Amino acid sequence: MLSEESGEFGEWEDLSVSLEDGMVMWPGDPPFSIGRIIDMEKGGSLNLSRIELTVHAGTHVDSPLHYLQTGKSIDEAPLSALIGRARIVEIRDPESIKTAELRSIGLQKGQRILFKTANSTKHLKNMKQMKNISYINPGAFAEDFIHLTVEAATYLVQCGVQTVGIDYLSVGGYKDDGDEVHRILLGGGVWIIEGLDLSMVTPGDYEFICLPLKITGAEGAPARAVARKLISGGSHKAVIATI
Amino acid sequence: MLSEESGEFGEWEDLSVSLEDGMVMWPGDPPFSIGRIIDMEKGGSLNLSRIELTVHAGTHVDSPLHYLQTGKSIDEAPLSALIGRARIVEIRDPESIKTAELRSIGLQKGQRILFKTANSTKHLKNMKQMKNISYINPGAFAEDFIHLTVEAATYLVQCGVQTVGIDYLSVGGYKDDGDEVHRILLGGGVWIIEGLDLSMVTPGDYEFICLPLKITGAEGAPARAVARKLISGGSHKAVIATI
Repeated sequence: MLSEESGEFGEWEDLSVSLEDGMVMWPGDPPFSIGRIIDMEKGGSLNLSRIELTVHAGTHVDSPLHYLQTGKSIDEAPLSALIGRARIVEIRDPESIKTAELRSIGLQKGQRILFKTANSTKHLKNMKQMKNISYINPGAFAEDFIHLTVEAATYLVQCGVQTVGIDYLSVGGYKDDGDEVHRILLGGGVWIIEGLDLSMVTPGDYEFICLPLKITGAEGAPARAVARKLISGGSHKAVIATI
Repeated sequence: MLSEESGEFGEWEDLSVSLEDGMVMWPGDPPFSIGRIIDMEKGGSLNLSRIELTVHAGTHVDSPLHYLQTGKSIDEAPLSALIGRARIVEIRDPESIKTAELRSIGLQKGQRILFKTANSTKHLKNMKQMKNISYINPGAFAEDFIHLTVEAATYLVQCGVQTVGIDYLSVGGYKDDGDEVHRILLGGGVWIIEGLDLSMVTPGDYEFICLPLKITGAEGAPARAVARKLISGGSHKAVIATI
């Protein structure tokens, strides 16, 4: 319950990837596209654009219907899974998110956990000078991104985690077990946020808001995600509920 | 600054219209469409959907670029305009939002104001029993929806209001002055949220979050909007900054 929370917070930070022509998509998925139907540069009285995208482009939320034929669709997602306190955790393993590292974190039932992995920095190499940099947009799809193992997904379900977020386009691997990781999490009641840009945030506790578009009957939706860090020892006493 | 706010709040309420086939669009705009590229009902191993829509479908944010050739695009919108305290005001005039009624409200510089008009209930008539009712989805476009007059738009700019929201597809009228109302607000530094579903919320002060998709260079974006009411006299002392 965010309503039980108060305290002092930092500024809102945007954890969303930019949607734009040429952005990296999951291999095989059609591209994101945008075009103006009415264009002031061509004499129109206003600008009006149309977009086309899969609901898994950029920062997005997966609902159970993505992998479970009778699962909930994205318009049925509880706001409580997507708004409230979240913990950004740094993963040190350079290959995958494994159970051993998760055990050291001290996961709790109902938590929202966002994994900041080497994905967040790996693809930023030599690109730090670019404006509006986003690790997903430049360059090609990285097949070797860091993802959850099947065992780690099972452990997250056992812990009763409410929401899991990751800093690349999937919680599951590209070459191995990607489908199985999704099925375990979605079947276990865990909401999945993929394509988060965590490159500019440090580990810690945050107030987190991820709002996917409300698309009737869809198995997921593009989303905007923001967070602001809980600053301990501030001028206000921090009184934050565990969840 | 939301960071200066605390207090007791009600539950989060969804102020977003559902995006779905057949939903009402601005006349002349192409329809919203959704289709599955991969479908479990057809033997696919997962469900994967693609959507196509104008960036002004359903609940959405207009940025200055919508009407001003050198105006800011939606990815440049400050989060502060879209997250924080907002006031939901009930408009009694059955035709339009006029300056006289706005004067009685006591508007303040920097405020986020959401206008709940007869739009919110008018198109719900005889449809209250339907599941997931949304005033914009059923039926056809209502040409006579309640909107701001040119004078009222000018007054809002004079007051220095930060953000204006309305419960139909445009802040400006369909037959008269719609373009001019947009130009006045966007040129005057006011951010516009259109297509809000305010049918289930009562007037008052809220914590408000409206997150549009981050689309590079677009003149607007579809958004998800939620709010929770500030409950005065609660167990926590309400300490809310004016803005």
